[in-house]
Amino acid sequence: MNYQAPLRDMRFVLHELFDIGNHCALLGNGLDRELIDGVLEEGARYAAGVLAPLNRQSDEQGCQLDAGQVSTPEGFAEAYQQYVDNGWASMTGPSEFGGQGLPQMLACNFHEMLMSASLSFRVYSGLTEGAVLALHRHGSETLKRDYLAKLVSGQWAGTMCLTEPQAGTDLALLRTKAEAQADGSYKVSGSKIFISGGEQDLSENIVHLVLARLPDAPAGVKGISLLLVPKFIASPDGGLGARNALSCGALEHKMGIKGAATCVMNFDGATGWLIGAANQGLACMFTMMNDARFQVGLQGLGIAEAAFQGALGYARERLQSRALGGAVAPGKAADPIISHPDVRRMLLTQKTLVEGSRMLAVYCARQLDLEHAHPDLAARQAAGKRAALLIPLVKAFCTDMGQEVASLGVQVYGGHGYIREWGMEQLMRDSRITQLYEGTNGIQALDYIRRKVLGDGGSELSQLQAEFSQLCDEQMSRPTLAELAHALQARIGEWRELSSAVIAASQRDVQEIGATSVDFLQYSAYVLLAGLWLQAAARAQDVLDEGLAGPAFYQAKLHSATFYFKRVLPRASGHREALLGGAACLMAMPEDSFAF
Amino acid sequence: MNYQAPLRDMRFVLHELFDIGNHCALLGNGLDRELIDGVLEEGARYAAGVLAPLNRQSDEQGCQLDAGQVSTPEGFAEAYQQYVDNGWASMTGPSEFGGQGLPQMLACNFHEMLMSASLSFRVYSGLTEGAVLALHRHGSETLKRDYLAKLVSGQWAGTMCLTEPQAGTDLALLRTKAEAQADGSYKVSGSKIFISGGEQDLSENIVHLVLARLPDAPAGVKGISLLLVPKFIASPDGGLGARNALSCGALEHKMGIKGAATCVMNFDGATGWLIGAANQGLACMFTMMNDARFQVGLQGLGIAEAAFQGALGYARERLQSRALGGAVAPGKAADPIISHPDVRRMLLTQKTLVEGSRMLAVYCARQLDLEHAHPDLAARQAAGKRAALLIPLVKAFCTDMGQEVASLGVQVYGGHGYIREWGMEQLMRDSRITQLYEGTNGIQALDYIRRKVLGDGGSELSQLQAEFSQLCDEQMSRPTLAELAHALQARIGEWRELSSAVIAASQRDVQEIGATSVDFLQYSAYVLLAGLWLQAAARAQDVLDEGLAGPAFYQAKLHSATFYFKRVLPRASGHREALLGGAACLMAMPEDSFAF
Repeated sequence: MNYQAPLRDMRFVLHELFDIGNHCALLGNGLDRELIDGVLEEGARYAAGVLAPLNRQSDEQGCQLDAGQVSTPEGFAEAYQQYVDNGWASMTGPSEFGGQGLPQMLACNFHEMLMSASLSFRVYSGLTEGAVLALHRHGSETLKRDYLAKLVSGQWAGTMCLTEPQAGTDLALLRTKAEAQADGSYKVSGSKIFISGGEQDLSENIVHLVLARLPDAPAGVKGISLLLVPKFIASPDGGLGARNALSCGALEHKMGIKGAATCVMNFDGATGWLIGAANQGLACMFTMMNDARFQVGLQGLGIAEAAFQGALGYARERLQSRALGGAVAPGKAADPIISHPDVRRMLLTQKTLVEGSRMLAVYCARQLDLEHAHPDLAARQAAGKRAALLIPLVKAFCTDMGQEVASLGVQVYGGHGYIREWGMEQLMRDSRITQLYEGTNGIQALDYIRRKVLGDGGSELSQLQAEFSQLCDEQMSRPTLAELAHALQARIGEWRELSSAVIAASQRDVQEIGATSVDFLQYSAYVLLAGLWLQAAARAQDVLDEGLAGPAFYQAKLHSATFYFKRVLPRASGHREALLGGAACLMAMPEDSFAF
Repeated sequence: MNYQAPLRDMRFVLHELFDIGNHCALLGNGLDRELIDGVLEEGARYAAGVLAPLNRQSDEQGCQLDAGQVSTPEGFAEAYQQYVDNGWASMTGPSEFGGQGLPQMLACNFHEMLMSASLSFRVYSGLTEGAVLALHRHGSETLKRDYLAKLVSGQWAGTMCLTEPQAGTDLALLRTKAEAQADGSYKVSGSKIFISGGEQDLSENIVHLVLARLPDAPAGVKGISLLLVPKFIASPDGGLGARNALSCGALEHKMGIKGAATCVMNFDGATGWLIGAANQGLACMFTMMNDARFQVGLQGLGIAEAAFQGALGYARERLQSRALGGAVAPGKAADPIISHPDVRRMLLTQKTLVEGSRMLAVYCARQLDLEHAHPDLAARQAAGKRAALLIPLVKAFCTDMGQEVASLGVQVYGGHGYIREWGMEQLMRDSRITQLYEGTNGIQALDYIRRKVLGDGGSELSQLQAEFSQLCDEQMSRPTLAELAHALQARIGEWRELSSAVIAASQRDVQEIGATSVDFLQYSAYVLLAGLWLQAAARAQDVLDEGLAGPAFYQAKLHSATFYFKRVLPRASGHREALLGGAACLMAMPEDSFAF
């Protein structure tokens, strides 16, 4: 399977849809179009030329643990070295610690390429950026001085150590202990599981961000602290000091991302230091977690793009049966399967979900940038609220979408999709983790409805709805867009009613929150994607109206938008009806009666 | 993962819902309840006790090819010997060749258990039954005399050799040749791929049913013949004669069912004999294919049952977070996750899809029995039409359902679902093939709409709709069933309108057939399952009305039916709307514009 970065679509989204030029100017960041496109092109060369060729083999080879040392698949170490040397690791890092401070809006496109090329490889670097964020925002000056520059450059990698065997979703149950020492450090003891890149042979040092309890901590989530626990303690000269008392006890055997080492990590009185205040660990970790959730959404997107490319290539080459409307390739024994309506349905479902999710991800990245660096405080706060609303949608929707699109990729290949050498089934296996880690998609849905919608009485969601409603008003008079604009306006009216119904139901019965969460998230995401598709169609029509050359790309956007509205958006109706089915039918079944 | 056959539910479906006692009497088959339940219980012991323990290991070990010999996973050979010795192989075989002639309606429950316990193992025996059917119906007396008894007993196994590298869905493209010899035999030459059990170490002999072309055959599907090509030619004394000129050239490396040998089979002038007339091979093969498609539907069902059992067990044990409505297990650190509404949503989705699909499968099996052995010709024909309508629904719906339910199983386990040792991810990998083989689910949808619905102008479908409409009328006055009966009646009205719309659209534009097929199949299946759920609820209410002891099982049926109607059936609305989106938005996109 060949991967080529979808540069044309990325440029459309960045420049034509969301005007990254103005965005950068607003952020006080002097990136011009040439530089932006140059970064994308170089990134594409790295992802397609260096990483993608390693992906298939890394799945067969996996990782090995031998005497505490983890070996990653062949080629990963060299590729990681290039990643560091060429500055890919430091793209978004803070400039005072050697980072390039590039906006997320640009970086997320490169990160999508990494996910497409090799999700396993990206797992090793993906958490470092979140660790940088958490340490930069919450760490002491000393910790920042000793650890941040090497993390920003990628010479050292970061991990996120949350889960324990008895504490997954419910972090209140975690038992890892941190005991204060006379010198201000802590001794950390306990065992963590599912630690991505907990041990590896790519970076010189690994800096673990560990959730633990101090001896006198209150019970539950209010008694959790965040500690920095490095594999090697930084020496005063910025080099590697003493080896810390922590080790990888085992590697998990997994369905996919086999090139990524998923470790059991044992901390045996390891030396660590608090990040942020004692017992405030969860809030500090959420800085990292929010970034990680956004990145996992990109994983779904990246896998989906790769699956779409695979399926499209196959559908153009594979000759089976004559087209129902008459031969398309009369000189050949049969027609390419892309001629068949049901194959087109699968491909266009992939295409419109992928391109729609890319718009969603970039739209969210834009809010993250504005939250971080808009000159105006009120604008920063507004963007922060919007990003907070969007992140569970990006994480859950893009990863469910990634699994569906990967599965459609297998389906387009028919029996060949099930055979390992074609690479399609690997995409399904690799993507399946994205619906689980960094909070299952059920947890994302709870976060969305409880914190992000009910949390402010639905006001941020109303604001979002109002913006897309205004877009409908603006586009309603344009002949090619009127049908879409009317359809979306109707959906937004429905969405508003549904939001009120959900809020009212959850006030009446607390079980309604969990009973409606997943369907409400899915409904919201499908309608939001419709809004983004209308925006894309409107922009495409602007260009076509200008009568410039090369209209095929823009006409395809209009076709895609129509397909999405007619054939994908109807799923929202199913989610709406299911949601309105309510909690009672879930809670009525006695636990003993689930099986006899 | 422990598997226990769902005997209580099977007995409900067989005895209480579909009255297998009367069914057997009608077929002139003297099975009483004790014997039926005895078969189920013995079958359950074999599946749970012998096969299930082999499944996990068989996935790790896979199959090996060495010098043309295939080794199956450890324990498979012994388990297969028991399967033959204890008469499991011969359950449905014709009695004049040593079979027990048991009805499909009973056998399909045992076959479901095999699928749950080890899909890989079942692949080796599953096609033999279809081969028996095809040979018994279409074979010469000589071939039947020489091959049938050993196939019925399972001492010899059957395969189905259709696919070639260039000919998958489109069998018109196949190139394997069969040249007539002076003695009435044929020399068969060519290469077949994806042959399940093409070579193995379980049975003494392997009898390949091979599609090939005679030298003077017309082009396309009208020039395909079916041949019996054995690994060892039967000797006149019923033993093994000469080794034939065929061999396994390679094993495929697959996503799942790794314990099942998927072979490239090379026929190098191998000796074979025609089954049925020359150039009538496709019709003969369809006897086998219909059986195989029904069996693959059972595979989806069996995997789904196993996934539900795994998820339910885990959800009862796993303690995470407090229930939203207050502590359920106040003495423990957290509540079992089955207390959480979203976990209940996943479990009840699994449960109602599994039990609904079981009703669908048994309902279809009943038609197959009646088609085969009803004393009245008209009744046989009517049952045959009904079975033909149902088989693509069983194959496509139950396998899509199987993949979804397996994926929900992974999701209930959270991160642990992704780890191999828990067994849940294997179910996802194993089940993924069922959506592909024996005709992809897209092909099933085309078969459904084109041959089974358009083929008779929608009359058989109308008849089915009328029967369930009558059920609604009958149940509408019962207080506990009125809501469901009204809801189903409304759906059936909608289904009728939709059927007319689909038929009209396909007459207007041939592309509409392929453009609407998958959504129409899905819509049909969800509504049909609602009909079966109403039937189950009505029967459960009958029992409750009688005031017998042990009402929990029947109350659970009522709860489940309500859940299905409120939270699963709404998907039909999404399929309906998508279908009405039509073909134009699929066909408008120029092939060059799928990607830029």
